[in-house]
Amino acid sequence: MSTLNRSFASDNFAGAHPSVIDALAEANVGHARAYGDDDISLEVYAAFEELFGAGTKSFFVFGGTGGNVAALSSLAGPGDCVVCTEWSHIHVDETAAPERAGLKLLVRPSLDGKLTPHDLQVAAHWLGSQHHAQPRIVSITQPTEVGTLYSIDEVKSLCATAHDLGMVVHMDGARIANATAALGGPEKLRSFTVDAGVDVLTFGGTKNGIVFGEVIVYLPQSGNPVVERAVRYAPWARKATTQLPSKGRFVAAQFRALLRDDLWVTLGAQANGAARDLYEAVRGIKALRLATPPAVNSLYPVVADAIAERLRETSFFWPWDPEEQRVRWMTSWDTTSADVAAFAAAVKTCME
Amino acid sequence: MSTLNRSFASDNFAGAHPSVIDALAEANVGHARAYGDDDISLEVYAAFEELFGAGTKSFFVFGGTGGNVAALSSLAGPGDCVVCTEWSHIHVDETAAPERAGLKLLVRPSLDGKLTPHDLQVAAHWLGSQHHAQPRIVSITQPTEVGTLYSIDEVKSLCATAHDLGMVVHMDGARIANATAALGGPEKLRSFTVDAGVDVLTFGGTKNGIVFGEVIVYLPQSGNPVVERAVRYAPWARKATTQLPSKGRFVAAQFRALLRDDLWVTLGAQANGAARDLYEAVRGIKALRLATPPAVNSLYPVVADAIAERLRETSFFWPWDPEEQRVRWMTSWDTTSADVAAFAAAVKTCME
Amino acid sequence: MSTLNRSFASDNFAGAHPSVIDALAEANVGHARAYGDDDISLEVYAAFEELFGAGTKSFFVFGGTGGNVAALSSLAGPGDCVVCTEWSHIHVDETAAPERAGLKLLVRPSLDGKLTPHDLQVAAHWLGSQHHAQPRIVSITQPTEVGTLYSIDEVKSLCATAHDLGMVVHMDGARIANATAALGGPEKLRSFTVDAGVDVLTFGGTKNGIVFGEVIVYLPQSGNPVVERAVRYAPWARKATTQLPSKGRFVAAQFRALLRDDLWVTLGAQANGAARDLYEAVRGIKALRLATPPAVNSLYPVVADAIAERLRETSFFWPWDPEEQRVRWMTSWDTTSADVAAFAAAVKTCME
Amino acid sequence: MSTLNRSFASDNFAGAHPSVIDALAEANVGHARAYGDDDISLEVYAAFEELFGAGTKSFFVFGGTGGNVAALSSLAGPGDCVVCTEWSHIHVDETAAPERAGLKLLVRPSLDGKLTPHDLQVAAHWLGSQHHAQPRIVSITQPTEVGTLYSIDEVKSLCATAHDLGMVVHMDGARIANATAALGGPEKLRSFTVDAGVDVLTFGGTKNGIVFGEVIVYLPQSGNPVVERAVRYAPWARKATTQLPSKGRFVAAQFRALLRDDLWVTLGAQANGAARDLYEAVRGIKALRLATPPAVNSLYPVVADAIAERLRETSFFWPWDPEEQRVRWMTSWDTTSADVAAFAAAVKTCME
Repeated sequence: MSTLNRSFASDNFAGAHPSVIDALAEANVGHARAYGDDDISLEVYAAFEELFGAGTKSFFVFGGTGGNVAALSSLAGPGDCVVCTEWSHIHVDETAAPERAGLKLLVRPSLDGKLTPHDLQVAAHWLGSQHHAQPRIVSITQPTEVGTLYSIDEVKSLCATAHDLGMVVHMDGARIANATAALGGPEKLRSFTVDAGVDVLTFGGTKNGIVFGEVIVYLPQSGNPVVERAVRYAPWARKATTQLPSKGRFVAAQFRALLRDDLWVTLGAQANGAARDLYEAVRGIKALRLATPPAVNSLYPVVADAIAERLRETSFFWPWDPEEQRVRWMTSWDTTSADVAAFAAAVKTCME
Repeated sequence: MSTLNRSFASDNFAGAHPSVIDALAEANVGHARAYGDDDISLEVYAAFEELFGAGTKSFFVFGGTGGNVAALSSLAGPGDCVVCTEWSHIHVDETAAPERAGLKLLVRPSLDGKLTPHDLQVAAHWLGSQHHAQPRIVSITQPTEVGTLYSIDEVKSLCATAHDLGMVVHMDGARIANATAALGGPEKLRSFTVDAGVDVLTFGGTKNGIVFGEVIVYLPQSGNPVVERAVRYAPWARKATTQLPSKGRFVAAQFRALLRDDLWVTLGAQANGAARDLYEAVRGIKALRLATPPAVNSLYPVVADAIAERLRETSFFWPWDPEEQRVRWMTSWDTTSADVAAFAAAVKTCME
Repeated sequence: MSTLNRSFASDNFAGAHPSVIDALAEANVGHARAYGDDDISLEVYAAFEELFGAGTKSFFVFGGTGGNVAALSSLAGPGDCVVCTEWSHIHVDETAAPERAGLKLLVRPSLDGKLTPHDLQVAAHWLGSQHHAQPRIVSITQPTEVGTLYSIDEVKSLCATAHDLGMVVHMDGARIANATAALGGPEKLRSFTVDAGVDVLTFGGTKNGIVFGEVIVYLPQSGNPVVERAVRYAPWARKATTQLPSKGRFVAAQFRALLRDDLWVTLGAQANGAARDLYEAVRGIKALRLATPPAVNSLYPVVADAIAERLRETSFFWPWDPEEQRVRWMTSWDTTSADVAAFAAAVKTCME
Repeated sequence: MSTLNRSFASDNFAGAHPSVIDALAEANVGHARAYGDDDISLEVYAAFEELFGAGTKSFFVFGGTGGNVAALSSLAGPGDCVVCTEWSHIHVDETAAPERAGLKLLVRPSLDGKLTPHDLQVAAHWLGSQHHAQPRIVSITQPTEVGTLYSIDEVKSLCATAHDLGMVVHMDGARIANATAALGGPEKLRSFTVDAGVDVLTFGGTKNGIVFGEVIVYLPQSGNPVVERAVRYAPWARKATTQLPSKGRFVAAQFRALLRDDLWVTLGAQANGAARDLYEAVRGIKALRLATPPAVNSLYPVVADAIAERLRETSFFWPWDPEEQRVRWMTSWDTTSADVAAFAAAVKTCME
C-alpha cells in the first residue's frame, strides 16, 4: 500500500485553497497598518457585521485554541467556570491552555458530544455558593468533536436555558463552515448562531482551507452586560492570550477570500460530501460499527489497534477513544473521489 | 504632504519578501502532517541545528509575544521571576501576557535598554528568601527596544554573571537579523548567542519580511538541568501558551526561504542601511537630539507632540517615551532611498 | 424542634479542643521569629519527621484548599494536569483555586470517591502528546469526600501504577486523623502513606479540633527528581499561593498539642464513633438508603428536599448530590451521645 | 550581648494581645456556622459598617498577601495592571502571588514609598492601547513600606486623579492601626480612607496584636461599576485565592476584641510611641542617617553589614535596601521602654 497524497487524518493536514494563496500575494503590496487597523481588515470586519448583523465585533487571532481561550477569558470573572462536554476541544485538545488563563472547565459526560439543557441545570446547582466555581459560561462546539451537529432548535433551547440561568454562551466554530453547509448554507448561519442566542463565536478558518487564522466574533446582543464588558476587554484579552496577529492584513486577506462568493461554505460542503462518500463506500463493513451517515466531515469507526497500524501506512489518522478503539477519519475541502476510493479500498483490504 | 507607500512606523507595517510568498505557494501541495511534523519543518529544524550547533532544539510559534511567553514559561518554576529592563517588550508591549502565565517581571531601570551584570547582582539580593520571587531567569533583547546593541563581550559577561548566580538567560531576538547584520553577518551569530552563553532564544521572522512566525530556539548547553527540563517541557509550554501552529509547514516554508542564502541577514542589513541613511539625512536638525548613528534600524528622536501630529500625515509612527516626547522611526527590509528622502524632507518641513 | 449545640453539618462547625486553645495561650509569650523559624515550629518539623521518617519536610499553611494548591503547584510543570475523581475537594470545593494556579484537573467518574489503577491507565493515553495536558500528578483524598477509605493495598497499588507511569502521588489528608483512627491507629499511619508510596501529603488540622492550620508534608522518597524539585520550590510555591502564615508559632503550637499523646487520632476516633452511633440509630429507616456503616465520620443518606428542609431546623447540613437528593451528615471530635440521640430522634420524626 | 525578649525585627515577631487570646477561648463554645456565617462574624461585619459607613462590605481572610491578592483580583479584568511603588509589599514581598493571579504590577520608582498623581498620569499614557496592560487599578500602602504616611490631602488628591483617569484605588492597610493612631485616632479613619475616595481596603490585624487574620473592606462607593462588580465577585475571588477561613468565628472574635474600645488604635499608638522613643535614643548617632522622627513604628537607619551582623545578636532585624545598607528596626504593640533602652544601648555599643 502506498500513502495517499491527501490523508484522512485531519482537515489541518490539507493545505490552503489556491485563492487563499493568491489573496496573500495580492495583499502583499507596500506597507499597511499593523494589528488589524489596515484597510483589508476593516473590510472584513464589515463583512462579518453583514453576516451576523449590525453591532457584531470581530477580532482576528492566530489559531483555534488561542481564539477559544481569548474569548472565554474576556467573559470570565474570578472563580467563574465553563460548562463543556468531555469531548470538547477546550478540555481534550488544548493542553491546559484554558486553565493557564485561570479558567476552570466543568466537564459533563456526553455520548454525542452535545450539551443539553439538563447539563446546565445540573451545573446550576453550584450557582450562588462561594465554595464552587461558578458556571457562568457555556461552551459548545458546532459541529461537535465527535462529528455531530446541534440542530437549530437544540442551540436555541440551550441558549434559552443558559440565559435563564444567568450564563452566556460561547460557540467553538472551528469547523463552522461544515456545520453551515450541513444545515442549509450561508442563509442558515444566523439561525443557529446569533438568532439562536449564541453570545460569542470562534469562527474557524485554518481547518477550512486557509494557512492560519480564526476570528472571535461577538454577536450583537440586547444589552447583556457580561458580553458588553467582554467586547470592551476583547483587545486586551486577545493580546494577553498572545493572540494578536502582528501583520493583520494577511489574516484579513485570507478571510476576504473565504467569504467571497461563500467560498467557505463551498469548501465545507466539499469536505462533508467526501465524508458521506467514504461512509457509503465502507458502511457495509459491520466491524466498523458506523451506525449513521456522517453529519459533517468525519467518521468515528471502531478499528482494532493492529488493523489501525496497518491502515496508517495508507493514511495517518488519530485515535479518538482508545478505550473503545474508536478512531477518527476526517475529510478535507480538497479530498477527491479518487482519494476516497483508494482509502476505502485500503480499509477493505485491512479489515478482511 | 501625501502619505508614503512604505511607512516609518514599524517593520511590521512592511509586507513579506516575494520569495516568502513564493515559498508559501510552493509548500501548498497536497497534504502534510500538521503541527510541525512535516518534511519542510524537519528540514528547518536541521537548519537551525546547523546555525547554532548540534543539540539545538527549535519550536515554531505564531508570534513574538507568544514565543517569549512560551520560552519563559518553560524555564520558570513557582515563584520565579524574570529580570529585564524597563524598556523590554515583555514588560511594555505584551499586555501582561507573561503575568497571565504566572511570570513576575523584575524590571530594572536602564538608559540604553541593556541589562548589566550589576543589575543581576542587585536582583540577586532576593535569592534564597521565600518572601521574594526568585530571579532565576534573565531576559535580554538583542537589539534592544531602544535601538542599541549588546556587544559580544557584553552578552558574554552578562551570561557569565547570570550563570554564576544560578540564573538562565533568554534572548528576545525579534529583530535578531538586524543585530546579526550589524555585528558582522551570519558567521558572527554564534558569537553573541550560543557561544556567549545564551540558553534560549526567540528567533524573529515577522519583523524581517515574513507573513507570520517566530522560532523558539533552545541552544545546546552543557548540562544545565533547568534548560534541559525546559526543552522537555517545551511542546507543552508552547501549546499551553496557545502558540502551536496547526499547519506547521507554512511557518517552516517561510523560514526555509529566509535562511536560504542568508536572506534573513540581507534583509536585516537593508533595514539597518535605510536607518543609517535617514540618520544622515536628518542629523543636522539639532532639535531631534539624535546623538549617535543608529546601531540597527530605528531612530528615537525628540519630536514635540504638535509636530509629530503633522508629520504623521506623511507616515504614522509610534510614541516611545511620552514623558520626553521621544518617538520612534523605524525602517524595514523594503525601505527605499526614495522613501528615506521623502520622509526626511517631510521631517525638515515640519521641524522648521 | 430546637437546634442542637453541636450540629451535623461539618467538622468545621466544631470549635477547637481545649488543649489547643491552651496551646495558643502558652505559645503567646514574648517574641518569636516569624514564618515558621521559631522554636516550636522546629520542634513540630522534627515531630513530623518522626511520624513519617527521616528526610520528611513539613510546611505549615493556613487552610486545606491552600495546602492542596501549594502542594500541587510545587509538583507541576507547564501543561501538566492532575488526575482526581469527580468528588474530589480540589475539583468540587475549591472554587477554581487550582486552575487559577494553572493546574488542569483531569476528573474521573467514580462511584465511591476513589481512583483506581485503571483510571490512571486511561489518563495515561494522553501521555506524550503535546495536544493534551500531561497527567503527571495523581491526587487522592483519604478518607474520600464520600466517606470511604482506601485500604492500604489500594493506596499501594495506585502508587505503584502511578510511579510506573511516571506520575507522582498527592494525598489530600484534610481528615487524615479519621482515616488513621479507622485503619488501626497511629502505628498504621506510615502503611497507607509513605510506605505505600505517597509522595506528598496535606495533613489536616482544622477539621480535627484546631482553630486553623494544615501541614504540607513531603514524604522521604528514593530520589524521585520531581518530588525533590518540589521540595526545593515548596517555600515559594507556598508563598505564591498566599499560604505562608506570618506568626508560624501559633500554627506549630496547635499541631504540637494535636500530636501530643496522639490526641489527633483520639479526636478522629471520637468523630468516627459518633458517626457509627448515628448510623446504628437510623439504619432502620429504609428510605435513607444507608447500605453500609460509615468508614469514618460521615453518612450520605437520601433525604427528600422537603424533609431536609424541616430537618435543618434541628441541624444545618449540606446537600451532597442534588441530583439524587443525597445529603451529608457529619460528626465531629466533640459530638456527644446526646447529640446523636437528639438528631436521630429528629430524623425519625421528620421521616415518618 | 544577650538577645531581647521582644525583638525589633517586625511586628509579626510579637505575639497576640491577651484579650485576643481570651477572645479565642470565649468564642470556642459549641458549634457555629463555618465560613463567616456565624453570629460573631455578623457582629463584626456590622462593626465595620459602623466604622466606614452604611454599605461597607467586609470579608475575612487569613493573611495580608492573600488579602491583597484577593482584593486586587476582584477588581481586575484581563490585561489590567496595578500601579504601585517599587517599595510596595505586593511587588517586593509577595513572591509573585499577584502575578500568579494574572495581575501585572506597574512599578513606579519612589523615594518615600508614596505614589503621586504624576505617577498615575505617567501610567495613563498606556491607557487605551491594546499593546499595553491597562493601569486601571492603583494600590497604595498606608503607612508605606518605608515608614512614611500619606497625608489626608495626599490620599484625596491621588484618588481624585485616579478616578478622573478611570482607575480604582486599593489601600494596603496591613498597618492601618499605626496610620490611624498617627493621623489623629479612630475619628480620623474615614478621612484618609472612604472620605478620601479609597475604594477597597485591606484592614490588617496580624501585625497589630492578633494571631492571624485580615479583612478586605469594600468601601461604600457612589455607583462605581468596577467596585460594585468586585463586591459581587468578592466571595469567589477570595476562595479562588485560597483565602476563605474555614472557622470564621475565630477570625471574627479576634477582630471583635481589637475593635472593642478602639484597642486596635491603642496598640498602634503604643508601637508608634516605642519607635519615637528609639529614635530619640539613637538620633545622636550620625552614621545611622536618621533624618526625621518616625511617622509610625519603624526606622530605616544605615548600618554597615558587619555592624548589623553584631547587632543582630541582640535582636534580629531585616535588611531593607541592601544597595545602601539600610536596615529596618520595627517596634510592636508590646515593645516596652526597657526593650528600647536595651536595644539603643546595643546600637551604641556596636556603632562605636
